[in-house]
Amino acid sequence: MNAAVRAIVRTAIHHQLLPFGILRGYQGMIEGDIFELKTTDVSNIIQRGGTILKTARSKEFMTEAGMQKAYEQLQRHQIEALILIGGDGTFRGAVEFFKKYQIPAIGLPGTIDNDLNGTDETIGFDTAVNTAIEAIDKIRDTAEAHDRLFLVEVMGRDAGYIALHSGIGCGAEQIFIPEQKESIEEMIEMIQEDKRRKKLTSIIVVAEGDEIGGAQGVSQILKERIPDLETRVTVLGHVQRGGAPSSRDRILASRLGFGAVEALLKGRTQEMAGMINDEVVFTPFASCVKLQKPMSSDLLEMIRVLAK
Amino acid sequence: MNAAVRAIVRTAIHHQLLPFGILRGYQGMIEGDIFELKTTDVSNIIQRGGTILKTARSKEFMTEAGMQKAYEQLQRHQIEALILIGGDGTFRGAVEFFKKYQIPAIGLPGTIDNDLNGTDETIGFDTAVNTAIEAIDKIRDTAEAHDRLFLVEVMGRDAGYIALHSGIGCGAEQIFIPEQKESIEEMIEMIQEDKRRKKLTSIIVVAEGDEIGGAQGVSQILKERIPDLETRVTVLGHVQRGGAPSSRDRILASRLGFGAVEALLKGRTQEMAGMINDEVVFTPFASCVKLQKPMSSDLLEMIRVLAK
Amino acid sequence: MNAAVRAIVRTAIHHQLLPFGILRGYQGMIEGDIFELKTTDVSNIIQRGGTILKTARSKEFMTEAGMQKAYEQLQRHQIEALILIGGDGTFRGAVEFFKKYQIPAIGLPGTIDNDLNGTDETIGFDTAVNTAIEAIDKIRDTAEAHDRLFLVEVMGRDAGYIALHSGIGCGAEQIFIPEQKESIEEMIEMIQEDKRRKKLTSIIVVAEGDEIGGAQGVSQILKERIPDLETRVTVLGHVQRGGAPSSRDRILASRLGFGAVEALLKGRTQEMAGMINDEVVFTPFASCVKLQKPMSSDLLEMIRVLAK
Amino acid sequence: MNAAVRAIVRTAIHHQLLPFGILRGYQGMIEGDIFELKTTDVSNIIQRGGTILKTARSKEFMTEAGMQKAYEQLQRHQIEALILIGGDGTFRGAVEFFKKYQIPAIGLPGTIDNDLNGTDETIGFDTAVNTAIEAIDKIRDTAEAHDRLFLVEVMGRDAGYIALHSGIGCGAEQIFIPEQKESIEEMIEMIQEDKRRKKLTSIIVVAEGDEIGGAQGVSQILKERIPDLETRVTVLGHVQRGGAPSSRDRILASRLGFGAVEALLKGRTQEMAGMINDEVVFTPFASCVKLQKPMSSDLLEMIRVLAK
Repeated sequence: MNAAVRAIVRTAIHHQLLPFGILRGYQGMIEGDIFELKTTDVSNIIQRGGTILKTARSKEFMTEAGMQKAYEQLQRHQIEALILIGGDGTFRGAVEFFKKYQIPAIGLPGTIDNDLNGTDETIGFDTAVNTAIEAIDKIRDTAEAHDRLFLVEVMGRDAGYIALHSGIGCGAEQIFIPEQKESIEEMIEMIQEDKRRKKLTSIIVVAEGDEIGGAQGVSQILKERIPDLETRVTVLGHVQRGGAPSSRDRILASRLGFGAVEALLKGRTQEMAGMINDEVVFTPFASCVKLQKPMSSDLLEMIRVLAK
Repeated sequence: MNAAVRAIVRTAIHHQLLPFGILRGYQGMIEGDIFELKTTDVSNIIQRGGTILKTARSKEFMTEAGMQKAYEQLQRHQIEALILIGGDGTFRGAVEFFKKYQIPAIGLPGTIDNDLNGTDETIGFDTAVNTAIEAIDKIRDTAEAHDRLFLVEVMGRDAGYIALHSGIGCGAEQIFIPEQKESIEEMIEMIQEDKRRKKLTSIIVVAEGDEIGGAQGVSQILKERIPDLETRVTVLGHVQRGGAPSSRDRILASRLGFGAVEALLKGRTQEMAGMINDEVVFTPFASCVKLQKPMSSDLLEMIRVLAK
Repeated sequence: MNAAVRAIVRTAIHHQLLPFGILRGYQGMIEGDIFELKTTDVSNIIQRGGTILKTARSKEFMTEAGMQKAYEQLQRHQIEALILIGGDGTFRGAVEFFKKYQIPAIGLPGTIDNDLNGTDETIGFDTAVNTAIEAIDKIRDTAEAHDRLFLVEVMGRDAGYIALHSGIGCGAEQIFIPEQKESIEEMIEMIQEDKRRKKLTSIIVVAEGDEIGGAQGVSQILKERIPDLETRVTVLGHVQRGGAPSSRDRILASRLGFGAVEALLKGRTQEMAGMINDEVVFTPFASCVKLQKPMSSDLLEMIRVLAK
Repeated sequence: MNAAVRAIVRTAIHHQLLPFGILRGYQGMIEGDIFELKTTDVSNIIQRGGTILKTARSKEFMTEAGMQKAYEQLQRHQIEALILIGGDGTFRGAVEFFKKYQIPAIGLPGTIDNDLNGTDETIGFDTAVNTAIEAIDKIRDTAEAHDRLFLVEVMGRDAGYIALHSGIGCGAEQIFIPEQKESIEEMIEMIQEDKRRKKLTSIIVVAEGDEIGGAQGVSQILKERIPDLETRVTVLGHVQRGGAPSSRDRILASRLGFGAVEALLKGRTQEMAGMINDEVVFTPFASCVKLQKPMSSDLLEMIRVLAK
């Protein structure tokens, strides 16, 4: 996310614009937490995890009064255009806001879940998947030597992209994702067949959004059904949201940040900049809803073949 | 652990000895899972996590019949001396075994918990702590921006060394360790004072052995006592047992492995090789019990001062 | 590369085929270094750098006698189809070989340089770029504090893709790539202007293929032209060829390996499997030559804007 | 180094003292680059490489006029005590300064070279060694497959500690260090014997201080003497000075920073705080000269045994 901020600030200055930062999203906009960003403020941040602008959810922005306050703050600071970085919620908020208040705005897809329409990949996704596989690689180092089942919970409340990609990447034996509705019976069967074949190592990646209740939930069901099975649970949690961004995320964020400023200068507004087939493309905010893309059945088939 | 195996094999060969590996510890000894190790078998393993010899717990070795079988296997393979790598349990097993069967043996402290008498540090501890702080660093990247409490569970069922060291290393606001019997009341008070001071970020490192029930247990108590507090739980689990070993662990393991072979050649037996003040020293197996060393009150005091 | 081998072996076994590995490429083919690969041989290798099949250049394979020997070995082991992993040279060799000898073959793009036609990305490229930026991030940590110029040489003898991507990813002030023919005068001017502006930090990424002689060459020219400039040189060298592969590379290699076996079963031959716009596509070996794609002038323009 | 600054600031505030930071060492002292450090200024820095206080060499401080200016700045800011972080040069400068000007001062050993008297380990050394072995591990991934000699240059102009420790840690075949005066002839002999034994992989770690001219120098001599030997050079350079510090360095720096403030309060002055056998100890500045400790011949012997 910092790479996007750096690109926006420097591209803006290059075009003789005066860039400002707003802290903690819409909440900071309401509270007037707005300050000029100079080129040196964004030196040496491209490699930092997190974001120098911080994030927060704002209930107040959902109200008319909140939006009114936010708009007044923008006026007061003479902000003439906005660049919004966020996910589904950010753009839904934007749609409401722009119904009433006229101010040019471009969005950037900033969510690790990769579940947005209008871009092949969201900023943060590649880093999150790499973080997950690094952790799972370490589990695999010891998994070989023990007759236990390792359950690893990765992020993705409504979307299983992180689980799917990290599962393929780490060579997991099974992947549980919200979209897949994989029945617990099928998993139990697989484990029991593995036991018959004396195949001991097993790493199962579980998306936190799984209705069974994450890795802890799966672990409990397994203990009931296969009492002599020893399971070990890892919950990666917010480990996946931090860390130095991957090269791919930095380049994506740089290109989209650069493109967002250029788009505003060309008069585009209320669109999200995304990357599709290596080109920067623009999609109206209203269409950047959460994606309910079905998982590719080819990939799911491949996982089954490769896990054996 | 692989660095120790490499050092043992090459030092043995250097002294014209014939080294063998035994898979899965005492269980493999009983089952005769014993094979020659050549110098090339230990090429390119110093940087690998886990162990090429695998590990297992053996209930059978606790019985006289099991020990008898193990001894017969050693005889059958003409094994003249043993080097054992493990923790408390390994050496307790050894003491029993050597009461009955005469075979020279040297032990190496191989446990990530760092809770053995006879050495300043156990093989694997430094790597585990580094793995934990890398994970917690990533959590800190996002922690700053959110008004939540992050609970991170690290390993250490009976000993809080990993929690203590990773807590200092990552600048945690609080550390929960079995030894410390830190009252939950004290923690709740601290959190409430932080809330009054509007100090939002908080990372608490919890040792899995904590009687409250690990990070999940602490989280539940906090939810009951401070209902508006949002907590996020990370359970690092076996992530801490794998990964490329740190430089320090590799050097420690190499020196102890090298020293173990030399010690056997000098006629030492039934002792564990440890490193104390940068010197290889030897301690009888019977004294290498689990250490109930009180945590240094200086370090605990320092943590409190530095977390503010 | 190991992820591709794993995918090929397991997909082949899934289709009741019998997979073999050939060590050290064409040279191993000539020498008959050929052995069956079982499903367990490829367990736990997806996360390893390098390749279990090793690599070598073979001058002998350039001769008719060499090709003849290679073909005889394939016959002798009853190999009915080949999957080749490599770069430009691998496929040029293949074209010659298949002029004379009939055997179905599919290629996979295995080179860190990313300079092959027929695929958006080669296997290994994403990992190499991530390795480079991790190293450069560390240099940046200290670069800020010193009034020195840091020159970092990355791989890419004929192609500057690693330099371009790692340069954007690490926020380098300047990038030297073979394709760009950036005049040394322009660089000297930029440094002198920076000195006037008292802007001290400067990281310049140099592709090894640069005609000036790599980072050492650039350093020498700079010392002659700007005598009071202190430069520090890092040559990353083969560091970029190893290390645990990135998630993206593992998924790419898995999908192409899976696709290669399926393609052979469908009767395709003498084509390279590549990934274009997230789809597996096939390109005749003869067209998979080294790509002389001009660097995108948009990206070069962006670098200039963002480095200020 | 940041961990030390954090510990100093927070310990000082805990004792109701008012901590200041001085940018760029003695040069910043002369120029009055001095500012208050609050507890929040040192939040979230324990994991950062480099130092928020920056570093610089100061020729001006070597002169009487420079020292005079520095002292006046300290007076002007009402600085009542100093904590100096640095190496040999820092403490030599201090000795001169304190001959003329009376102000309590405690030093901390901050140099990656580990060549200071008065402490078992300097702040930064463990991190530098871990960075070096991570890089060399990646080289080893590909080294196996090629018949080439890999030369890796690590830091250590006058001291070979980084070379020695990273060489043991990565299982290098040979280590070249300034202290060792290893004759080039011995190395050439080893390589030629390896060639006879068809042992192909070889990683040689070279300390930059080596009189032969670093890895490039060794490479050139080898090319002349063994013309058919292919060598590859990596120069890690400043990569070793950055990156997130290891757990061990953070704890060392925290304890020494904490101890330095407490020492000043107890009236100690003109001493360096060091860690010897896990205890904080104090050594007069004049004795903290560069250490010409002979390399342990035991360790050098061990390397030879283990590399075979």
